[in-house]
Amino acid sequence: MSVATYHLYHHPLDPSSRLVRLCLAEKGVACALVLEKPWEPSEIIASLNPAAEVPVLVIEQDGEKQVLCDAQAICEYMDETHPGSLLGKTPLERAEARRLLGWFDRKMRAEVTTLLLNEKAIKRLRGRGEPDSAIIRAACANIKGHLGYVGWLTERRNWLAGSEISVADLAAGANLSVLDYLGDVPWDAFPLAKEWYARLKSRPAFRSILGDHIPGFPPPSHYANLDF
Amino acid sequence: MSVATYHLYHHPLDPSSRLVRLCLAEKGVACALVLEKPWEPSEIIASLNPAAEVPVLVIEQDGEKQVLCDAQAICEYMDETHPGSLLGKTPLERAEARRLLGWFDRKMRAEVTTLLLNEKAIKRLRGRGEPDSAIIRAACANIKGHLGYVGWLTERRNWLAGSEISVADLAAGANLSVLDYLGDVPWDAFPLAKEWYARLKSRPAFRSILGDHIPGFPPPSHYANLDF
Repeated sequence: MSVATYHLYHHPLDPSSRLVRLCLAEKGVACALVLEKPWEPSEIIASLNPAAEVPVLVIEQDGEKQVLCDAQAICEYMDETHPGSLLGKTPLERAEARRLLGWFDRKMRAEVTTLLLNEKAIKRLRGRGEPDSAIIRAACANIKGHLGYVGWLTERRNWLAGSEISVADLAAGANLSVLDYLGDVPWDAFPLAKEWYARLKSRPAFRSILGDHIPGFPPPSHYANLDF
Repeated sequence: MSVATYHLYHHPLDPSSRLVRLCLAEKGVACALVLEKPWEPSEIIASLNPAAEVPVLVIEQDGEKQVLCDAQAICEYMDETHPGSLLGKTPLERAEARRLLGWFDRKMRAEVTTLLLNEKAIKRLRGRGEPDSAIIRAACANIKGHLGYVGWLTERRNWLAGSEISVADLAAGANLSVLDYLGDVPWDAFPLAKEWYARLKSRPAFRSILGDHIPGFPPPSHYANLDF
């Protein structure tokens, strides 16, 4: 049996793509990244995923090709097929990790990340439209609730869903790292969330994401700094 | 060990609540339904779920109470703790069932169900606002793509994700049954989707949903008809 190769169709500022990159890295699986613009889906991504969305993971082994879509489905697949658990040991632990994956990858993304990403990055990268300051203000108000919730959880648990790191941490870290790239995380007002993010950021699995650099749209200087 | 009791906080027209009801019924688990208005969260739902959203499943056994939130997390928990599989046997089968759960419970819900539900039902039930015909038109255009996709899948497979019924069918059925309650599914233009829905509708697990009747907002006459 030959070694499997992994290709991930992604965008560096798409939080669900980052979630999958973090999951692969925590599993010690190397993947080649293929850049896609979510606002201008290529024919390739449309042929791989009927939703024409990133992330899409393509696994090739022994001449067979598997195409996986949907960030949560990909993380669950990786967890089922590779050693170590990013979901938890018991059904109740897994239910909590999945609840929080949903919280950060869907609720927080819709209330904060997608809004700021669209107003501050995508409009600029597409060269279309001006940022809407009312939307930016709303998203910057919403982020406080999520940072407070991260802090609340870490006062009660070692990691967000329990004693071990899980997809909940990866989903929260994926969204907060995108927002940090945009310079929009008020870390100093949320010391508990900051302490949790510093721990996450120092993991080897986070390195690839901290090395992201979009031409013409650089991150702030503290972005890759472990002592931010 | 005493018998576990199940309480589901739900709304009859919330598609994610219906997904959980279908999952519990397929597992043969009886639950007591507790009505919540999603547009006016009670103190109880806010205390059970920090997102203050339905569905929430409360399981009590031997004096212990477990609270589960997030439709996908609840379905996965039920699948892990009860005989029979609604996800599939292999990691690849489960990845496909989860991709399609995401497709119907999130993508289709956002593009169709939430829009029509809000314009045609929630505005009326709240006694606030008039339906927006532009939004209704957009949602009615979008539903065609999803019915076509259901048909496309059933031409290739016995059920949506593979040879056996799965959470993919339950998520699609949950959304389409809400839309059918609103009278908004153009069944006759999509005979393959209609044939699949007729099979789903005739399952005992579907009975509770076909019996739903919201005071002052009755379903159309074909709604509970197995030969529609």
